[in-house]
Amino acid sequence: MERIRSSEVTKHVGERVKLAGWMHNLRDMSKFGFLFLRDGAGVVQAVLDRPEELEKARGVQYESILEVVGTVVAEPRASAGAELHDCEVKVITPILEPLPFEINKKELKPGLDVFLDHAPLGLRHLHKRALFRLSAEILYGYREYLNQHGFVEIQTPKIVGSATEGGANVFGIDYFGRPAYLAQSPQFYKQIMVGVFERVFEVGPVFRAEKHNTARHTNEYVSLDMEMGFIHDHTDVMMMLTGILRHVFERLRTSFTREVELLRVKVPSIGATIPALRLSEAQDIVSKQFGEDCRGEPDLAPQHEAWICEYAEKELGSELLFVTHYPTAKRPFYAMPEVEDPALTRSFDLLFRGCEVVTGGQRIHRFEQLRDSAHKWGIQDAQIEGYLQAFKYGMPPHGGFGMGLERLLMQLTGLTNLREATLFPRDLDRLSP
Amino acid sequence: MERIRSSEVTKHVGERVKLAGWMHNLRDMSKFGFLFLRDGAGVVQAVLDRPEELEKARGVQYESILEVVGTVVAEPRASAGAELHDCEVKVITPILEPLPFEINKKELKPGLDVFLDHAPLGLRHLHKRALFRLSAEILYGYREYLNQHGFVEIQTPKIVGSATEGGANVFGIDYFGRPAYLAQSPQFYKQIMVGVFERVFEVGPVFRAEKHNTARHTNEYVSLDMEMGFIHDHTDVMMMLTGILRHVFERLRTSFTREVELLRVKVPSIGATIPALRLSEAQDIVSKQFGEDCRGEPDLAPQHEAWICEYAEKELGSELLFVTHYPTAKRPFYAMPEVEDPALTRSFDLLFRGCEVVTGGQRIHRFEQLRDSAHKWGIQDAQIEGYLQAFKYGMPPHGGFGMGLERLLMQLTGLTNLREATLFPRDLDRLSP
Repeated sequence: MERIRSSEVTKHVGERVKLAGWMHNLRDMSKFGFLFLRDGAGVVQAVLDRPEELEKARGVQYESILEVVGTVVAEPRASAGAELHDCEVKVITPILEPLPFEINKKELKPGLDVFLDHAPLGLRHLHKRALFRLSAEILYGYREYLNQHGFVEIQTPKIVGSATEGGANVFGIDYFGRPAYLAQSPQFYKQIMVGVFERVFEVGPVFRAEKHNTARHTNEYVSLDMEMGFIHDHTDVMMMLTGILRHVFERLRTSFTREVELLRVKVPSIGATIPALRLSEAQDIVSKQFGEDCRGEPDLAPQHEAWICEYAEKELGSELLFVTHYPTAKRPFYAMPEVEDPALTRSFDLLFRGCEVVTGGQRIHRFEQLRDSAHKWGIQDAQIEGYLQAFKYGMPPHGGFGMGLERLLMQLTGLTNLREATLFPRDLDRLSP
Repeated sequence: MERIRSSEVTKHVGERVKLAGWMHNLRDMSKFGFLFLRDGAGVVQAVLDRPEELEKARGVQYESILEVVGTVVAEPRASAGAELHDCEVKVITPILEPLPFEINKKELKPGLDVFLDHAPLGLRHLHKRALFRLSAEILYGYREYLNQHGFVEIQTPKIVGSATEGGANVFGIDYFGRPAYLAQSPQFYKQIMVGVFERVFEVGPVFRAEKHNTARHTNEYVSLDMEMGFIHDHTDVMMMLTGILRHVFERLRTSFTREVELLRVKVPSIGATIPALRLSEAQDIVSKQFGEDCRGEPDLAPQHEAWICEYAEKELGSELLFVTHYPTAKRPFYAMPEVEDPALTRSFDLLFRGCEVVTGGQRIHRFEQLRDSAHKWGIQDAQIEGYLQAFKYGMPPHGGFGMGLERLLMQLTGLTNLREATLFPRDLDRLSP
């Protein structure tokens, strides 16, 4: 008999079927029992009405791998829409050790450190599983939208020869006796590839050797990058990002209701545009309405981001907010200055429920201007030779963004620590599992 | 006037439109000229029938960024299906330096090293662009098929705390003063995640510090990994891989005919199954038919792979061939031994036109067996603690594979060096651009 998955049982009502999965739970009613079998698709309820089968199940440790053969009976109250009766149980992989914590209860008890130490087990909890399924579906929606809009996916190297872009916060590698570094972003490569495909995107790991352990930073994360040519200014990139997020959120809301409901996720609705404030405007508001004078500072501190988002939700009716026109001194050398005020850049951050999730902007596209800007930052031509080459041979006005997958997932699902939104996080203290 | 892309001109016949792109070519007929404008979607032909516009174009260097406004006239002989008449040309980004080589001719002249040094320019060649579009579409088809079959995409860390899997060929990182390594594969993580989602896949970079510069190796490449639970043996994985490749190839053949024809790619048709030979059978054939006795060797040498593929094409009618049952001594500690002969593993390689492109197999899923096997290889429990944890708490019979994206692309398109199938290759000598 071929195994079916829990999502298929309703198609086999009245038939005898075989399922296999993890022993998720056993509710022992003394004369009979409910065995809950978890597979990759869901959980199915198997009624153990034969005494010898119930007795067999009683001796089995949770998370053991079982095969269950039974007759499918429609049962609308069961999560799978049907349950199994007259079951025979077979143990495929027995578990000998007791579990360090329960993973079949509604809430996961252990604190973050204990959880992360036991991630291979803890990630099996239905909430965790739902969380990382949403993560996968964010990626799916992101790629789907960009594919529909003429973007080509690229894969660029993570080992790089010079650490120009980000300065100090870079991991060094011993590359056959030569120094090399882990890429902090695919920035230079995706810009180069605008010269080839005009519109490109990449999903890949980025590495930041930042020596702070905060709830919103890890040292390796997944970056959703895109870059597009032939724009007027940064607002074209903001519009594309708005379309992407609208598509991604809409897809989660309509196609992944089970996960959304299980995690009680409030998926935002995005209208025609996301409101935008200049940094200076946002600072004025924070100063006036929240009593902390941050005017003139080059960036928003986390508390300021929280406040301005509070303002945006209340006054602008949006949980998302663009903040634009960060000062030239705080953005990378390739950031396009604003024509009327070159001390400011055509740049933006996207804040979502109090936290920055995207950084982007228009880039300088003329060779001479880019080289001059690099020189001002103390960067020599030789350090960025390949990058400059793209500009020497013709680049259109362009811009793009980088979005942190885990940040987006954290803010979407209301988590408080980025590590909870990362399968196997890397930070100052944690290199395993 | 809003810019349209070259793929949209046929929708605007009779209208005045604006296009923008790179100056790909100019055919100067003295009284008038044909300007070829390249954008992300294709190449459009603009007839310069006004003398002053032709004169303007004559002074412009190829690869400069232009805007062209013109009237769309249907022209079935043009690659875009229409051309522009009565054009006005505007230079957006002029190019001042001469190009190091021509990229608007049918063939790319420079050798591999010169090309790689100038990849930001060279990748704009229509052939190169088509090649890497096919690469993106392989990824698309791969994910699409796996999504349809219940697989969940995962993202696992590339910085790892121990270098257990692959031994010597690993890059070391300075991780805040502690040793760490670049992951050689997502093997342990994807197996752990079988415990969570049952079926998972990942697309990401892998890193191999191998000190050989061969035409079929680089030090960083993109690995298409998958892992699936509840299998009978390795042949279930082989069947899934067969389905994936059939889907990917079919999609390229039917939806990307322009690229396939431009590169003269022969896309293989895959029937119900791909033929399979045991390693010992393949060695017998090589020894008997090609006169080199390789029987008893633990693996096929590149020449043997070429010969056995020659045999498979001629005798079995297939450009793809599975070779199975590699010896336990040559496969990793987690490879599942064959029940009847534990000196052999339930493993396979997939050969494609003379070169290995996939490695996979069934894995050991019982905790004690896995730990014992690790010990035999001199691996201590502490080195693989997180990995072992998944098995301690219940894993089903499972298996999977890793497929090199660049290898597959190289073999599909008939390239002779893996570097040609890599956007920005990394090898012993090359860390840039």
